[in-house]
Amino acid sequence: MTTFGESHGPAIGCVLDGVPAGLVIDEAFIQAQMDRRRPGQNAYATARKEPDRVEILSGVFEGRATGTPIAMVIYNTNQKSKDYGNVKDLFRPGHADFTYWQKYGIRDYRGGGRSSARETAARVAAGAVAKLMLGELGIEVRSGIFKIGEIEGQSFDFDHALQSEIFALDPAVEAAQKEAVLQAKEAHDSIGGAALVRVTGLPAGLGEPIYYKLDAVLADAMMGINAVKGVEIGEGVRSAEMLGSENDDEMTKEGFKTHHHGGTLGGISSGDTLEVKVYFKPTPSIFKPLKTLDIHGEEVTCELKGRHDPCVAVRGSVVAEAMAALVVADMVLLNMGRKMDDVARYYEKRS
Amino acid sequence: MTTFGESHGPAIGCVLDGVPAGLVIDEAFIQAQMDRRRPGQNAYATARKEPDRVEILSGVFEGRATGTPIAMVIYNTNQKSKDYGNVKDLFRPGHADFTYWQKYGIRDYRGGGRSSARETAARVAAGAVAKLMLGELGIEVRSGIFKIGEIEGQSFDFDHALQSEIFALDPAVEAAQKEAVLQAKEAHDSIGGAALVRVTGLPAGLGEPIYYKLDAVLADAMMGINAVKGVEIGEGVRSAEMLGSENDDEMTKEGFKTHHHGGTLGGISSGDTLEVKVYFKPTPSIFKPLKTLDIHGEEVTCELKGRHDPCVAVRGSVVAEAMAALVVADMVLLNMGRKMDDVARYYEKRS
Amino acid sequence: MTTFGESHGPAIGCVLDGVPAGLVIDEAFIQAQMDRRRPGQNAYATARKEPDRVEILSGVFEGRATGTPIAMVIYNTNQKSKDYGNVKDLFRPGHADFTYWQKYGIRDYRGGGRSSARETAARVAAGAVAKLMLGELGIEVRSGIFKIGEIEGQSFDFDHALQSEIFALDPAVEAAQKEAVLQAKEAHDSIGGAALVRVTGLPAGLGEPIYYKLDAVLADAMMGINAVKGVEIGEGVRSAEMLGSENDDEMTKEGFKTHHHGGTLGGISSGDTLEVKVYFKPTPSIFKPLKTLDIHGEEVTCELKGRHDPCVAVRGSVVAEAMAALVVADMVLLNMGRKMDDVARYYEKRS
Amino acid sequence: MTTFGESHGPAIGCVLDGVPAGLVIDEAFIQAQMDRRRPGQNAYATARKEPDRVEILSGVFEGRATGTPIAMVIYNTNQKSKDYGNVKDLFRPGHADFTYWQKYGIRDYRGGGRSSARETAARVAAGAVAKLMLGELGIEVRSGIFKIGEIEGQSFDFDHALQSEIFALDPAVEAAQKEAVLQAKEAHDSIGGAALVRVTGLPAGLGEPIYYKLDAVLADAMMGINAVKGVEIGEGVRSAEMLGSENDDEMTKEGFKTHHHGGTLGGISSGDTLEVKVYFKPTPSIFKPLKTLDIHGEEVTCELKGRHDPCVAVRGSVVAEAMAALVVADMVLLNMGRKMDDVARYYEKRS
Repeated sequence: MTTFGESHGPAIGCVLDGVPAGLVIDEAFIQAQMDRRRPGQNAYATARKEPDRVEILSGVFEGRATGTPIAMVIYNTNQKSKDYGNVKDLFRPGHADFTYWQKYGIRDYRGGGRSSARETAARVAAGAVAKLMLGELGIEVRSGIFKIGEIEGQSFDFDHALQSEIFALDPAVEAAQKEAVLQAKEAHDSIGGAALVRVTGLPAGLGEPIYYKLDAVLADAMMGINAVKGVEIGEGVRSAEMLGSENDDEMTKEGFKTHHHGGTLGGISSGDTLEVKVYFKPTPSIFKPLKTLDIHGEEVTCELKGRHDPCVAVRGSVVAEAMAALVVADMVLLNMGRKMDDVARYYEKRS
Repeated sequence: MTTFGESHGPAIGCVLDGVPAGLVIDEAFIQAQMDRRRPGQNAYATARKEPDRVEILSGVFEGRATGTPIAMVIYNTNQKSKDYGNVKDLFRPGHADFTYWQKYGIRDYRGGGRSSARETAARVAAGAVAKLMLGELGIEVRSGIFKIGEIEGQSFDFDHALQSEIFALDPAVEAAQKEAVLQAKEAHDSIGGAALVRVTGLPAGLGEPIYYKLDAVLADAMMGINAVKGVEIGEGVRSAEMLGSENDDEMTKEGFKTHHHGGTLGGISSGDTLEVKVYFKPTPSIFKPLKTLDIHGEEVTCELKGRHDPCVAVRGSVVAEAMAALVVADMVLLNMGRKMDDVARYYEKRS
Repeated sequence: MTTFGESHGPAIGCVLDGVPAGLVIDEAFIQAQMDRRRPGQNAYATARKEPDRVEILSGVFEGRATGTPIAMVIYNTNQKSKDYGNVKDLFRPGHADFTYWQKYGIRDYRGGGRSSARETAARVAAGAVAKLMLGELGIEVRSGIFKIGEIEGQSFDFDHALQSEIFALDPAVEAAQKEAVLQAKEAHDSIGGAALVRVTGLPAGLGEPIYYKLDAVLADAMMGINAVKGVEIGEGVRSAEMLGSENDDEMTKEGFKTHHHGGTLGGISSGDTLEVKVYFKPTPSIFKPLKTLDIHGEEVTCELKGRHDPCVAVRGSVVAEAMAALVVADMVLLNMGRKMDDVARYYEKRS
Repeated sequence: MTTFGESHGPAIGCVLDGVPAGLVIDEAFIQAQMDRRRPGQNAYATARKEPDRVEILSGVFEGRATGTPIAMVIYNTNQKSKDYGNVKDLFRPGHADFTYWQKYGIRDYRGGGRSSARETAARVAAGAVAKLMLGELGIEVRSGIFKIGEIEGQSFDFDHALQSEIFALDPAVEAAQKEAVLQAKEAHDSIGGAALVRVTGLPAGLGEPIYYKLDAVLADAMMGINAVKGVEIGEGVRSAEMLGSENDDEMTKEGFKTHHHGGTLGGISSGDTLEVKVYFKPTPSIFKPLKTLDIHGEEVTCELKGRHDPCVAVRGSVVAEAMAALVVADMVLLNMGRKMDDVARYYEKRS
């Protein structure tokens, strides 16, 4: 997958290479995935309204993938560059303004430019294609929010999350989590949160032994999402507190007795449910004055206006789900030539 | 970097491409790094004794890198394959035996084969070369253990860690951490732990905006180390609990006032100290009986003998440090062509 | 560079990553390059008329590259799919219809789909950006036709080629070459041809020693252009007939005395002029009946209608020039971190 | 494949990743392939004697590939660095000495260092593993010399080539070709030559449509071999002289009527025999005085001593064969996930 596009440029988009020919490309499904991430839908997300209409430019013919690159483009329609006039020359704290300036010496001051979360819309479109492919193999990728601020859910109901305005996994804490978001919003502040991505139906054996381990590539994909600062597989951080006798998952004919490993062993899928937790920092854009520097090195006060998510984790969970689908789809394809018997059988049948 | 080799094969090694020509390759330094990870040195690590002598096969001439691939090989001298006879046909719980079997349908039963932590020795050798290069640029990569089981240090003294048998960062809890390791060992069990990697002197601007973000690639490198289940940058998991007003790091002429971001913003280094935390599960190899399956699908009991680390995090911290050095070195080289002015100036000077 | 798009889909385009920030993106120059390749301009090329208007979707702000991916899209406006109705189910000889069918089992029968030469328009757009960058470094990439059928020019006048309707390098044979194209066209046939790409101002030292040799990557780029069947560097095929004493280029303080090596030695640029020759087969689409198979395996006769280039080499030379520019631009950027002294100097200056 | 090693360093070698698990690794076969390229066997090659004994360091267990990286190393035993004392500071014409110096500013003057043809021994070892894999699929890769100087064979007898001291394909011209090599040798000169690589049994559909075309990657692999200056597929250079009606290969139920395309159409294999021609310049090392520069920029005379191949094409043909095997093996594995039906069938069977 290659993505492109900025928050306030003409369009964002992606090019997906290697999609197997013949896959049915259900455009309504792709659009439905986009709509889950789309801003402007309720009080818990930025007020920026974007239809996020996906246009497929190539790689699909008569409703099926042709095997050649699929390009998708989403035109930006609601760029309010004037919102950013007052921060044109200063580095918003917690944003990439400063690091991009250091790297490139050039400033696209319009809403974060390339580093804006808007770019992630293209990832959701690409992930939707991956989900279509995985769906045909019986592999399901789902996500939801289990934590907002200090309010953490204990149960994980992915069907409920689909209906929830904040994608909450635990109905018991949903109201409190919503309240926490609104409180932050009203205080002109923002709040962190965390998503759980779960993959079921995954065959054992996916992931390469050294350079393309399933857990490593998932960590890469997740940490690469805007605002993510922590990634866990299975027990994650807590595994450092455990004894081997607690943490080892015994096996029986019925499968694993416990699930501490979270679906990967040695970087390769075990066939057990894959569980990844992704932690998002609070949106750096808040509407309180903060000290910062401008591009001339002077100390100034940053007072933001504009439209921002009070809790970037909420829509971020949809992006995490999409990224997980892309990683798993890659692994599914990579894995096919790993046993000589399979290679021989594949080419025998063709000749 | 390409690595190769198995726990009980003839040798392990690595090939490093892209090392800048002229870099002084200090073999004694490389060997010293190897010695930090080397097993068999004290009661807190596996009793397997390996001299881990690095032999450079190519890419170095008269003590300097020539610019061509540097191959390093470490011969295995102490393979006790007979130790593994009794687990030849069964899947050790928590190990990659099962997943490799599922993937490849072939079993190198000798000590975990490729998935053994022994492969990480080659990464330490490669990391040592990266550290030599970074050292010439004033970039320092250090590591240590801040947590073993539930005992977590509060201060981070990297000089102390260098001298500590368990690379403990906090002298105040070192004794308790050692005790926890020995207790687990005596109980024929193992224990988890966590390492902190800190990079100082890093210039701002390292990391690519989308496909090679500094934080994402670090997460990949860390999660790809054996037994790692969680990775954090800066506040990490805790950032999900914070408000934006707490988490945003204000900037002054003296630099960042706080350090929640951990050195990257938008996937690009900020010039502030880089901090990565890496969480290791307890070594899966314990000497208590565990239920498992064999390769015929039958339920059996796994009773391990052999030599294993009671706390894999300890030596793992050296590997994490090496991997961080490799990632940062890559980013340093990648970054050089990112401004047209720099490109123009570079080629002007040459002509 | 990533390209996408089909002959008869909605659009073609490309995404260019790694363009140095600050490069002035002259859209008029890009469009001028597109116009050189554009069909429908004279009797020597296909009558298909496409405005080939390039739209930049990202990566450029206020006329300069921002360092993030540059996406460019070219909408197809003149797709006559009905032209292809009569070949919908059969494999046109010499085309990729058969191989794509074998690979993907799906058919985008509209004008060759992805394998159409139309995709190369996106490469010209990308190459134009590369040329802008190289231009700032004093590196010039030029091309022209030296051979059509058996008529081969002896002199290489690149300024003349720019004005020539068939990009002929040698005015002395231009009329004969034109005549050969028209004869083939009138006979409902097509004819082969060959282009010379010349790069001047190239610094010595570009190209990596093993996996990214300058000559190897050029060969890849050229052989990957539609209809190319042969690639030469310097003396090329003829070097096999030479003695070492003829072929070796002696060096003096004024430079190389002869130029047999064509600008690369050991895969690395020598600083001498780089010369690559690219040989195109005749367009496979001819308007004479040919025996072939259909997708059911039956023998049928292929009788093409539609619009095609009588000599694909002519417009192919512009594509070859663009590909050479892309390869050289990559090498220019890759090369910057190859000496430790340069790396150290670069980072010293920044701190 | 990753290779490493220099002409006069301790060892050369390679690491091969992605070899399917279970492949029988026949070490005697690998050694036999090495022996074909090995120097010092007759009057037509360099007198340097190397046993070229391959040692497998990893990735093989009980005679089969385990799926993890296979490292192979070949120790250099016969380095006569003193041979090179007199050229320590000057750039041998036609060699990479000058370009490496320009790139790296450091000189490994021992026999060409990394750019020596000796590195190609590691490619032959890697290619032998690829040939083992292809052999199980009924795909055969063969090579031989069809041209030396101006003496070109007309028939291609690959069995004869195997027995010939110069791998000659045409017995009718073999004696004349041998004579040409000896004449060059006696005149202290060298001579060019050309090899044909033929792949039979290749399934249709190999090669990716844009970035990994079969013909493009073959061109890359071939042009990357030391001393190669030209590459052709099928009719190659001559296709530029042809009419479409001559060049188009008609299809019948029995297959292609003619074979101008050489086995690829649109970058994808057609199932027809694949034919690649590779043109080698004469070895630049000759024993006649040549004008050149030294590292101080002074004009000097280069008078070589040492041991060199009078016709590098001869042993180069074995390298070309190995590289073709590696490329085809990659394509075979890459191709397996290209149809959704195949992907679905593969994973159904496993679950």
